[in-house]
Amino acid sequence: MKKKLAIDAMGGDFAPKSVVEGCLSAQAKYTDIEFILFGDEAQIKPLLTDTSRMTIVHTTEKIDSGESDPVKAIRSKRNSSLVLAANAVKNGEADALISAGNTGALLASGIFIVGRIKQIDRPGLMSTLPTMDGKGFDMLDLGANAENTARHLQHFAVLGSFYAQNVRGIAKPRVGLLNNGSEASKGAPLQKEAYELLAADDTIHFIGNVEARDLMAGVADVVVTDGFTGNAVLKSIEGTASSLMTLLKASITNGGMRSKLGALFMKKSLYQLKDTLDYEKAGGAVLFGLKAPVIKSHGSSKADAIFATIKQTHKMLETDVVGKLVQHYQEDK
Amino acid sequence: MKKKLAIDAMGGDFAPKSVVEGCLSAQAKYTDIEFILFGDEAQIKPLLTDTSRMTIVHTTEKIDSGESDPVKAIRSKRNSSLVLAANAVKNGEADALISAGNTGALLASGIFIVGRIKQIDRPGLMSTLPTMDGKGFDMLDLGANAENTARHLQHFAVLGSFYAQNVRGIAKPRVGLLNNGSEASKGAPLQKEAYELLAADDTIHFIGNVEARDLMAGVADVVVTDGFTGNAVLKSIEGTASSLMTLLKASITNGGMRSKLGALFMKKSLYQLKDTLDYEKAGGAVLFGLKAPVIKSHGSSKADAIFATIKQTHKMLETDVVGKLVQHYQEDK
Repeated sequence: MKKKLAIDAMGGDFAPKSVVEGCLSAQAKYTDIEFILFGDEAQIKPLLTDTSRMTIVHTTEKIDSGESDPVKAIRSKRNSSLVLAANAVKNGEADALISAGNTGALLASGIFIVGRIKQIDRPGLMSTLPTMDGKGFDMLDLGANAENTARHLQHFAVLGSFYAQNVRGIAKPRVGLLNNGSEASKGAPLQKEAYELLAADDTIHFIGNVEARDLMAGVADVVVTDGFTGNAVLKSIEGTASSLMTLLKASITNGGMRSKLGALFMKKSLYQLKDTLDYEKAGGAVLFGLKAPVIKSHGSSKADAIFATIKQTHKMLETDVVGKLVQHYQEDK
Repeated sequence: MKKKLAIDAMGGDFAPKSVVEGCLSAQAKYTDIEFILFGDEAQIKPLLTDTSRMTIVHTTEKIDSGESDPVKAIRSKRNSSLVLAANAVKNGEADALISAGNTGALLASGIFIVGRIKQIDRPGLMSTLPTMDGKGFDMLDLGANAENTARHLQHFAVLGSFYAQNVRGIAKPRVGLLNNGSEASKGAPLQKEAYELLAADDTIHFIGNVEARDLMAGVADVVVTDGFTGNAVLKSIEGTASSLMTLLKASITNGGMRSKLGALFMKKSLYQLKDTLDYEKAGGAVLFGLKAPVIKSHGSSKADAIFATIKQTHKMLETDVVGKLVQHYQEDK
């Protein structure tokens, strides 16, 4: 079955070049994908070395990464590449939406244009983050919501489990609740209440509380938390990893000839380390709980990150993970 | 002026050996410190190579690191080394309390035995965490509270500023509010309300919201947040740093002769990296907002970490940072 992707070709720091290049790589690899590129035809067309299964929907309007009121932005810029792409998904002309542009505007487009699965009040932003063994774990919410209830966290657990099962092929994903200790009684009222709901839900495999310290050790396959904490934890992991790599580089540079020579010998090991940490290999961040896959590629995405996001979207469509979710919630009623 | 330290000699993974060794190093360096060691005399005495300015208060009772109900533990174990040490501070026989034992029990001893500064409802747990430039930043609350109000966060800002000024010698500490974006309107209601309070408080130098991603880059000298988020961020930083060092080691070990040779050449640089990350150099975590310094050294503290905690406590007493805090809040009334 053909998979039609609505691509915001103008979103991201290196758009449209990197976006189009990523699409071309995916076009060569996946013959069942049709691409609809929303953006400035004059800029996109010269980059399109192969136009098969590629359609351009021309627009010169775009939402900048700096716009601070995303809801207002999608309402006032109705002809922006992002809003047109989201409309294409809403109208059934495309099966999924991909953008590397303004995160807030993509979240707003997902919720207000593509639309929620009826039973899920609050979709969550989810990424597959790296673990030391290379398997990774899915965490949500990473910041789609500033506040969440225990019921939202339970939905996140179901969403994350569906993703880990279908997209990552984990038969029985271990779901952990992010908390400040392992005992059931730990945490603020939100965590205590969420613990009860998760423990009582037999559609998931809840393993109890997990601590942020153990995430990279692979303590769970799915980790649920509220959007504020998830955002802080994600940014702490990113900031620490990036600071450490910077420090390592600086200590090599300032360490004189011995260090530089050493680093040269260690090149393979250092690249391997960088590679393990590169969670963009797993794709983008999914705004999960919507009627169709809506995926955010990192703002600084180069062609290979866009390709990884398309690969991930292809898998989501092939496994029909969203359709299965809708069915799960219908049966639940 | 003599400074009397009440030391829980039985707290921590390597107690009493490492604790006593740390005290002996500090005894040699600081001639104005008197040590009161609470613990098993039969174990402590043979380790005490120099007994000058050292007093042992014998007890065989102790609170284990695994006890999950800390309040119950300090109430039922009235003759434990920790509770006796806390009582010594309460009764004015000692000026500060140090323990590397059960964190929850130390927090409970601090709040219920040593006691709060009247105007501060919720003392916060604060550490100086590492930044890339080596200067560090103070963050609180790291988990003394599961929930906090905006008013608590304002107290944390004052506490952190006093510490940074007096103990770390920063004339005008930049205070940041941990949030999920830099704009004033960001965050959950707690952060929005805290932003208003911090912006209106002219006794501190508030620089606005800071994101977890930028903490190690040194974006602020003092970072305030609620205890749940602070705990998650601290553990994320610790977990990521430790996972990365493990990965680096593994990639060297598995990288064959070239990598091992390279690492040998890079030894100095790698140690320098490890050293920058070692925030125990800055001392322990202070439960701040009490009538006297109460400091938690890491459970796995060796002698040098205990020494660093004593050095920090010495500085807190020498600068009378707690006394100045009390005065600040009295004038405020």
